[in-house]
Amino acid sequence: MDKIKTPNDSLTVMTNIVLPSETNYLNNMFGGELLSRMDKACSISARRHAETHRVVTASVNQVSFIYPIPVGSIVKIEAKVSRAFNSSMEIISDVWMDNPETGETIKTNQGIYTFVAVDINNKPVSIPQIEPQSQEEMERYEAALRRKQLSLVIAKRMSPDDATELKKLFYPDEI
Amino acid sequence: MDKIKTPNDSLTVMTNIVLPSETNYLNNMFGGELLSRMDKACSISARRHAETHRVVTASVNQVSFIYPIPVGSIVKIEAKVSRAFNSSMEIISDVWMDNPETGETIKTNQGIYTFVAVDINNKPVSIPQIEPQSQEEMERYEAALRRKQLSLVIAKRMSPDDATELKKLFYPDEI
Amino acid sequence: MDKIKTPNDSLTVMTNIVLPSETNYLNNMFGGELLSRMDKACSISARRHAETHRVVTASVNQVSFIYPIPVGSIVKIEAKVSRAFNSSMEIISDVWMDNPETGETIKTNQGIYTFVAVDINNKPVSIPQIEPQSQEEMERYEAALRRKQLSLVIAKRMSPDDATELKKLFYPDEI
Amino acid sequence: MDKIKTPNDSLTVMTNIVLPSETNYLNNMFGGELLSRMDKACSISARRHAETHRVVTASVNQVSFIYPIPVGSIVKIEAKVSRAFNSSMEIISDVWMDNPETGETIKTNQGIYTFVAVDINNKPVSIPQIEPQSQEEMERYEAALRRKQLSLVIAKRMSPDDATELKKLFYPDEI
Amino acid sequence: MDKIKTPNDSLTVMTNIVLPSETNYLNNMFGGELLSRMDKACSISARRHAETHRVVTASVNQVSFIYPIPVGSIVKIEAKVSRAFNSSMEIISDVWMDNPETGETIKTNQGIYTFVAVDINNKPVSIPQIEPQSQEEMERYEAALRRKQLSLVIAKRMSPDDATELKKLFYPDEI
Amino acid sequence: MDKIKTPNDSLTVMTNIVLPSETNYLNNMFGGELLSRMDKACSISARRHAETHRVVTASVNQVSFIYPIPVGSIVKIEAKVSRAFNSSMEIISDVWMDNPETGETIKTNQGIYTFVAVDINNKPVSIPQIEPQSQEEMERYEAALRRKQLSLVIAKRMSPDDATELKKLFYPDEI
Repeated sequence: MDKIKTPNDSLTVMTNIVLPSETNYLNNMFGGELLSRMDKACSISARRHAETHRVVTASVNQVSFIYPIPVGSIVKIEAKVSRAFNSSMEIISDVWMDNPETGETIKTNQGIYTFVAVDINNKPVSIPQIEPQSQEEMERYEAALRRKQLSLVIAKRMSPDDATELKKLFYPDEI
Repeated sequence: MDKIKTPNDSLTVMTNIVLPSETNYLNNMFGGELLSRMDKACSISARRHAETHRVVTASVNQVSFIYPIPVGSIVKIEAKVSRAFNSSMEIISDVWMDNPETGETIKTNQGIYTFVAVDINNKPVSIPQIEPQSQEEMERYEAALRRKQLSLVIAKRMSPDDATELKKLFYPDEI
Repeated sequence: MDKIKTPNDSLTVMTNIVLPSETNYLNNMFGGELLSRMDKACSISARRHAETHRVVTASVNQVSFIYPIPVGSIVKIEAKVSRAFNSSMEIISDVWMDNPETGETIKTNQGIYTFVAVDINNKPVSIPQIEPQSQEEMERYEAALRRKQLSLVIAKRMSPDDATELKKLFYPDEI
Repeated sequence: MDKIKTPNDSLTVMTNIVLPSETNYLNNMFGGELLSRMDKACSISARRHAETHRVVTASVNQVSFIYPIPVGSIVKIEAKVSRAFNSSMEIISDVWMDNPETGETIKTNQGIYTFVAVDINNKPVSIPQIEPQSQEEMERYEAALRRKQLSLVIAKRMSPDDATELKKLFYPDEI
Repeated sequence: MDKIKTPNDSLTVMTNIVLPSETNYLNNMFGGELLSRMDKACSISARRHAETHRVVTASVNQVSFIYPIPVGSIVKIEAKVSRAFNSSMEIISDVWMDNPETGETIKTNQGIYTFVAVDINNKPVSIPQIEPQSQEEMERYEAALRRKQLSLVIAKRMSPDDATELKKLFYPDEI
Repeated sequence: MDKIKTPNDSLTVMTNIVLPSETNYLNNMFGGELLSRMDKACSISARRHAETHRVVTASVNQVSFIYPIPVGSIVKIEAKVSRAFNSSMEIISDVWMDNPETGETIKTNQGIYTFVAVDINNKPVSIPQIEPQSQEEMERYEAALRRKQLSLVIAKRMSPDDATELKKLFYPDEI
């Protein structure tokens, strides 16, 4: 498939309130509930990129919890594809809450998920490539390759020597 | 705190069925639902290790989805602390399902979560250290340090040169 | 309060998937579930307009169900304030789904909700006025007054003779 | 279909408690949760009237929120058909709560929903007519026709001149 | 407290539909979901009998599952107090479903729950007595005493010799 | 089927936290929620004993609520088969909570459920027998027969004279 799409083609916005049923015993949003909502937002973004194909969660690579989100907060999750490979794609999801006192917006979480597009027999299918537009999109596009190499090295499916992008982290001068 | 505990002191078992309300449109367990259950199991494990302290999710470092889990399956999640640092601890959660046809058990997922123990003012507090017992526990204990260094390097809070454990991955002979 | 805001200042986007747990016995999205999601989207829009005040649902004036939404669909709800009165505001919520076969977007529902901004003792407080920008926003702004008069006439809190905007519907030439 | 039924033939009573999971951040019952429960009660009433046919929500014409309902309250929803047309029917739902302090019962909400009976291909089918019995049932039966005309006029599917019942509201002497 | 009430004073009706989210893997209503709904209906009935006191579930004595209830069914639960003791009361809950094909009503379950009325410090408080009215209410009133004696004998808090009502089951002639 | 299994072959452990969404208005775990979780744990235990057969809840014979379980508690439910008959089996479920202040474990509930194994046409099928191992398992095995006879006598499907095990409760010397 030669088609190329931009990250914004898959942009998904999911705004919601934190209800009492979604909080832990500290009256903040329960971590698992947020993980679940981010997974939903990312899966919609993945489907929008993969068009008519089905998509399944392949891995959650990294989710950070920066600020607790108290009950009653307005939470906005944005997800878009950062890079597409053959049939897998990395989706980055950013989470903000409205500070109810000041009206300001605070970034509370960021998560990186990987989805795979599959056909009706659960076999991987190829998907459009991504052409990043903004500065942030380009940085995320580059980093996505390092993350992919890292996960392959850890899974022993790539030799560390071949992980060219990753090695730059450790020996930036060499390369 | 000089206290030392074993991984099994925090072992948490959470068995459940996949109900229709927890499935995606392919009739398999919805990824977000599993992430949420694993977070709950890990948070119980963290509380058992941290004793009377509160614990909060700090990050989800890696969750892999190996096999889809169909509706009606019996799912067993096990979580235990793999390594404790000052106030943070890494918890590994393994997920199995009973194969309803053969009665065999299949590993479907693995997840690595980090929790922090906090006092009533949300300040980190120190927690007992871990003494791994089994072969697998020892390997996970070692790997936990590499994962911690990796996340510090990525967050630019540690120089790659100081990430001694991590470098072994790339230059095993050197060290 | 002399402040003036635009409808877009309160724009709220809530995208989600229809899960099996949210369907009726025809495998379409359960009407009550959609009413509930629209209420949440409208309440966030109302809070964004009313700034630091609390808001409560006063009435649901009209929700139409145009197309059924099958399980697995991507549903996008948009809500924004169409007109603000003293302490009450009308919010219009539009619902679209992605047609999974063609990738097109279909409008499936529209709903009109009224919220009231209240202080900590549940007393109404005044809110910013609305200045509509687009053609559609202006039409909705005009119609909001007719709807308000209609509900006052029906509740016998306004004489039909005073419902000037409403009478235009029946005797357009006269006025 | 010549069959005639009374409103009580479709009477549906749904009593429940307000649990913490169903409240908003003011500890009162979340508006969307109540809208959803009323929709369920009305859909049962519609099925009881339409007998073996399927029913789908066509519109929510008006729901008023008179009193907030605090967590822990006993809420009783009653729904019955107020008037049947060819294949559509109007259902009125009244909501009361037990005042936990005095033991008295307070009316907190009223909602008017329209459902349509359909066959297996989603085509409208004819339903029994309604013969109101009590004074209140007769008044609601009359008002249902005005509401139907109003919604047709608003949708521009009926000329205001033909909305004979509706015009009485504005020019009662004339007719 | 000398007050006497009838079983109908506490009658609670809870009608609902079985949604896909409430079914097991056989597409029938999940047993646990029904147990939970019956507990809610019984607790409302207990509160209505105990008036302004709080009530807590003391035991579930017996619930029978006679017919499975398929998804989409209309389920009606009725609960009323069968007998009151000092501070505890037995509540019987009957469950029916509408047969969607014939329109007939089938009894699918019956459950017997015991609740205790408590004050704000969780201490038992006395409650009104029950005067059964119908034939069925009188039979259930009698049987409630046998059930109470049986549970005391099993718990070794009553000697079998003192369980006069219970012994009639085994030696009906003797007494 | 001549196969014999031990109670531990069906042991099911379900650990979880009590979230705010699962509490009643006293901030303790809602009774119905616990009944529902115990039913799930018992049904998993029954499936593990019945191997590839389906199982359905036949009755809940007795559930006692000893201590309230406050929000935030860690709750551990254990279920295992106490005795198997032809196609039905009794499952006992024990519930503990971690006392968050002392770290001790308190038994809060016990429940006795009966499940039946059925084939694809809902006909009962025979299941393996149970050979109790521990002292507690043997006592529960014996008591299960008394409970079965009691329920048959109450249902008038067994003459009290034939309920040999049950009579020992009342006339221990005689037999």
